[in-house]
Amino acid sequence: MADRLKVGIIGIGRIGKIHAGNIAHFVGGAELAGVADLFLNPEGEAFAGSLGAGKVTKDPGELLKDPSIGAIVICSSTDTHADYVIAAAQAGKHIFCEKPIDLSVPKVKAALEAVKKAGVQLQVGFNRRFDHNFKRVRDLTLAGEIGQVHVVKITSRDPAPPPPAYVAVSGGIFIDMMIHDFDMARFQAGSEVTEVYASGSVLIDPEIGKAGDVDTAIVTLKFANGAIGVIDNSRKAVYGYDQRVEVFGSKGAAVAQNDSPSTTVLYNEKGVTGDKPLYFFLERYKQAFIDEMESFVEAVTRNKPVPVSGTDGLEDLYVALAASKSLKEQRPVKLEEVK
Amino acid sequence: MADRLKVGIIGIGRIGKIHAGNIAHFVGGAELAGVADLFLNPEGEAFAGSLGAGKVTKDPGELLKDPSIGAIVICSSTDTHADYVIAAAQAGKHIFCEKPIDLSVPKVKAALEAVKKAGVQLQVGFNRRFDHNFKRVRDLTLAGEIGQVHVVKITSRDPAPPPPAYVAVSGGIFIDMMIHDFDMARFQAGSEVTEVYASGSVLIDPEIGKAGDVDTAIVTLKFANGAIGVIDNSRKAVYGYDQRVEVFGSKGAAVAQNDSPSTTVLYNEKGVTGDKPLYFFLERYKQAFIDEMESFVEAVTRNKPVPVSGTDGLEDLYVALAASKSLKEQRPVKLEEVK
Amino acid sequence: MADRLKVGIIGIGRIGKIHAGNIAHFVGGAELAGVADLFLNPEGEAFAGSLGAGKVTKDPGELLKDPSIGAIVICSSTDTHADYVIAAAQAGKHIFCEKPIDLSVPKVKAALEAVKKAGVQLQVGFNRRFDHNFKRVRDLTLAGEIGQVHVVKITSRDPAPPPPAYVAVSGGIFIDMMIHDFDMARFQAGSEVTEVYASGSVLIDPEIGKAGDVDTAIVTLKFANGAIGVIDNSRKAVYGYDQRVEVFGSKGAAVAQNDSPSTTVLYNEKGVTGDKPLYFFLERYKQAFIDEMESFVEAVTRNKPVPVSGTDGLEDLYVALAASKSLKEQRPVKLEEVK
Amino acid sequence: MADRLKVGIIGIGRIGKIHAGNIAHFVGGAELAGVADLFLNPEGEAFAGSLGAGKVTKDPGELLKDPSIGAIVICSSTDTHADYVIAAAQAGKHIFCEKPIDLSVPKVKAALEAVKKAGVQLQVGFNRRFDHNFKRVRDLTLAGEIGQVHVVKITSRDPAPPPPAYVAVSGGIFIDMMIHDFDMARFQAGSEVTEVYASGSVLIDPEIGKAGDVDTAIVTLKFANGAIGVIDNSRKAVYGYDQRVEVFGSKGAAVAQNDSPSTTVLYNEKGVTGDKPLYFFLERYKQAFIDEMESFVEAVTRNKPVPVSGTDGLEDLYVALAASKSLKEQRPVKLEEVK
Repeated sequence: MADRLKVGIIGIGRIGKIHAGNIAHFVGGAELAGVADLFLNPEGEAFAGSLGAGKVTKDPGELLKDPSIGAIVICSSTDTHADYVIAAAQAGKHIFCEKPIDLSVPKVKAALEAVKKAGVQLQVGFNRRFDHNFKRVRDLTLAGEIGQVHVVKITSRDPAPPPPAYVAVSGGIFIDMMIHDFDMARFQAGSEVTEVYASGSVLIDPEIGKAGDVDTAIVTLKFANGAIGVIDNSRKAVYGYDQRVEVFGSKGAAVAQNDSPSTTVLYNEKGVTGDKPLYFFLERYKQAFIDEMESFVEAVTRNKPVPVSGTDGLEDLYVALAASKSLKEQRPVKLEEVK
Repeated sequence: MADRLKVGIIGIGRIGKIHAGNIAHFVGGAELAGVADLFLNPEGEAFAGSLGAGKVTKDPGELLKDPSIGAIVICSSTDTHADYVIAAAQAGKHIFCEKPIDLSVPKVKAALEAVKKAGVQLQVGFNRRFDHNFKRVRDLTLAGEIGQVHVVKITSRDPAPPPPAYVAVSGGIFIDMMIHDFDMARFQAGSEVTEVYASGSVLIDPEIGKAGDVDTAIVTLKFANGAIGVIDNSRKAVYGYDQRVEVFGSKGAAVAQNDSPSTTVLYNEKGVTGDKPLYFFLERYKQAFIDEMESFVEAVTRNKPVPVSGTDGLEDLYVALAASKSLKEQRPVKLEEVK
Repeated sequence: MADRLKVGIIGIGRIGKIHAGNIAHFVGGAELAGVADLFLNPEGEAFAGSLGAGKVTKDPGELLKDPSIGAIVICSSTDTHADYVIAAAQAGKHIFCEKPIDLSVPKVKAALEAVKKAGVQLQVGFNRRFDHNFKRVRDLTLAGEIGQVHVVKITSRDPAPPPPAYVAVSGGIFIDMMIHDFDMARFQAGSEVTEVYASGSVLIDPEIGKAGDVDTAIVTLKFANGAIGVIDNSRKAVYGYDQRVEVFGSKGAAVAQNDSPSTTVLYNEKGVTGDKPLYFFLERYKQAFIDEMESFVEAVTRNKPVPVSGTDGLEDLYVALAASKSLKEQRPVKLEEVK
Repeated sequence: MADRLKVGIIGIGRIGKIHAGNIAHFVGGAELAGVADLFLNPEGEAFAGSLGAGKVTKDPGELLKDPSIGAIVICSSTDTHADYVIAAAQAGKHIFCEKPIDLSVPKVKAALEAVKKAGVQLQVGFNRRFDHNFKRVRDLTLAGEIGQVHVVKITSRDPAPPPPAYVAVSGGIFIDMMIHDFDMARFQAGSEVTEVYASGSVLIDPEIGKAGDVDTAIVTLKFANGAIGVIDNSRKAVYGYDQRVEVFGSKGAAVAQNDSPSTTVLYNEKGVTGDKPLYFFLERYKQAFIDEMESFVEAVTRNKPVPVSGTDGLEDLYVALAASKSLKEQRPVKLEEVK
């Protein structure tokens, strides 16, 4: 259909495949016009082909110079995000960029500057805002059901830790994992973080400690509106992906529990047993990945503000950097110290 | 205190001890004035003494002729209930009688006649009406939250079957077990049963079958107000006492779940596991036994109608007899056939 | 891809669109090769086109004579199902037919005979067997977690009644609505129904009564293996689609609750409030529709037995007819009476 | 009975009445031998009399010099606790003292010294350890079901704030409210707190802020065993008393939810609504108050260690003082700084 947004994807790894499949199958207003991957292999090529992607190439530039393509989805490795954002902006494309834009504040700022100058839209891939449970919490707050927000509590635990080698380059638990929760906390509080205090331990894998990181962490946040937030992270919950959010306020509280494969419970001599939570993010946030892309396409095609902006990505990064600093220096850190 | 209702108990077996203890400790407006048991043993005597029961005797007549005693609680064996009701009524005592009054309709009618003639109060021990969960269901209906009642569903399963010898004399599953649910169904429907259809199987213990009974049964009820009811009973649920009630109507549904020892759940590799339901009626209906006695004492001392009358006991018996007849004759049975 | 099963759909109404969309987008081993609808309109044509259906026509015969098409999905009006089954079988196509095959036993038998003669596969559209919750219940039973099945309980309530005109031609509540539950009961019991007793009332809409049907019904089932079943249906639950299943046995019970849009609960002065169940079958069984088609395609392509056969459809119809007869004659009806 | 522990109570205010009633009615091994209250009024006297307390007096000394009394329960105002502990210890009585022993570390130490010297038992009234839900969490940990404890999370919110005048003298939120949670955290972690970081806001009542306190607080704890803890407190949850505990570890997590008056839920057009949590501590911890006294009596009569010692009370106080210091100085505070 002529009025669909033509989308090109850069990077056809795990997350790129998700977005490609969603755009091809589920996002009504878009179509998959092309896929580019510097390291394109036959498997990725076949996958892209099966989705009917018109152009499948190793050269991202081919997508950028294609005038029929209106938007670029950046799913390459993190260290290339900022450069592709800048290149796509300069090519006049709207941009959906996986999180984080970069680990370096100056590079993020340069990317945002390019986006601003080009007058294009940029959405950052904080998919959890679109989760049906967490969105419902926020909607209740927006509807006035919670009153003034006093406390935001987030539990976020992964089913299995990444390799220690990964945490050595990822920026650590606050940058590669808790940044999602920082974004969620800001989203739910409806306010910016002003101060961070981080506490952490190495309780799961000593190798993570040797790599300079912690695997269990609790971070307290102060918000500009007086609310307080607290996030607890663990790299390993044996029962699966634990993703819960609670917002407490003057009129009530909204509590989002985990999703599970079924509602069925078994009553027997051992007790009453239900399913574990859905295993990991691909299962839990399956629909959220679709919905964030729908929102991006709608923002672009109807010229509305994107729901998660580049500024959000930058603020989340500041919070993560402040948390890292706090853990290192064992004191609360004000956001302005890292800005 | 002079204005407390002085209560004498006949029968100090399992249920008699519960009522005695409740009257002595928990029922504000009553005191335990005496205990009589034809087969009184030292253990029962010591128990009664520890509660401060003034008179402890083998002769129920001693309680009946004591002018200070205002009410009699009958907890003796079922075959003596009706006679004690009559004797107590003739002695001018208010009466709380454990269920059932008798298995024979004429004997029940004779007892009710004596009560009526004496102008005393008679409450029958259908304790489940006072259960916090089931009462809440009824209160929601009375508050109009359910609208017109369409369906009443009751699940009632015991943790372990009685000895086959017991079911041979008890009157069977409809008389000794489901009668509680018939009373609950009438209570929740707010209407009288007009027709019964019973279906049953022997699935737990073949000896129960040899004794002429079933151990698994489902009974469908029609009510005068057009509502339909369904009750399922099992003599053995390996996970404990399963006691649930659901009322569905034009404006909604109220569903009462089981109680359990704690709200704590364990998340681990096997799933998410909570406690089994409370094991049996002593645990589940602990507070209900207190509350029914409170209600009885209040009805007597304030001259209000008792919440579960002799007529209720008779109606419940009719339903049970109709269910037995239905099972035997494999057809729906109208209540009028057994009246 | 050359080895995908090419599927033609007859009838592109509400349910036809669901199957068409699922085949086009979600069912890995199939592709949508054609759509035929006697009353094809521009909207249906556009819809089929947007899915890339090769052939879009008013003539089902075009699909039947296309040698590249391996399977036919019949989604036309009920009265045409049997004829299309026969025609498709004669054309050598495998068949997925929406339920019911027909309301007339002879016509169903004729259709099954044609299928048998042609040596093709026939799956009937009892989608609920594929529901994640109900399947989990069955899987627990098959894994031995429930032990011997004693009781199967099904609650099934629609959010809103159909027009009275519909029930006059649909065959009534047992044929158009509870037939799903009869199939579920047989599925969960792992045994055939031998006797049925139906009880019903008109409590929602007097017009349904005038049309000769009831709107509230409870049916008791006896199974060949001694288990007992009970189903309660209502045409109108104000809180949405209520779909629950419980299987109770010698080792435990499995209970499937409703699905809801989110797990989020609101705590405030009024109580603790969660979401209503998903509104109706399109929401609740969205994934089940996909999974049943996946199973059909897998059965056809791997030459395995279909999970819901024509014989299942016939047995379900017998149970429904027995229930209708029971309600009318106010007595339990043995299945052999309607066979 | 001659072998029951005779107990005297000092202070017959709200909490004194609870303990007196529990000892008189529920604690099998004890009897209420006397009640003393400096400000005894007719109402308190009548209450004590109705429980059969032998001695009812304005002079606590009468209980202390009564050789038949084996244990003293101290329920007077906080500022008198330490002196009564010392006096009771010197009189050779075992002691149950309501929390806190005192707000001053030296006074607490003096009291503990006197107890030690006298060789009597001292239990401090941290009743929540006996809550059925929280005890179940701890039991799961002790049974090895959680593995190594990584995180302890406690939510504790009151239904309504105290008068600002109260917080001005109570020592503030950490001393009068969160001290219960500090004790719970130590109990659940099975380890001592080594460092505290407190964050707080005035969000409920500005008068509380003027009185020098906060009404909303989150405290992070580090334990000697490497575990991390987090507690959130609010002085006002409009939905009632919110008391939850979660312990997360290497093998799983145990989560204790709130108790509510019933399990009944209402399904209607607005959603699915259950009861609010039990209103406040008298309801929620009703049984815990009984069980802590049972434990005390058992410890005394069987010469076992008390489950909550004076040292526990002192450690909890240290944590609370460290939290106050942390809030004031806006930095993490090590426990040794306040010892």
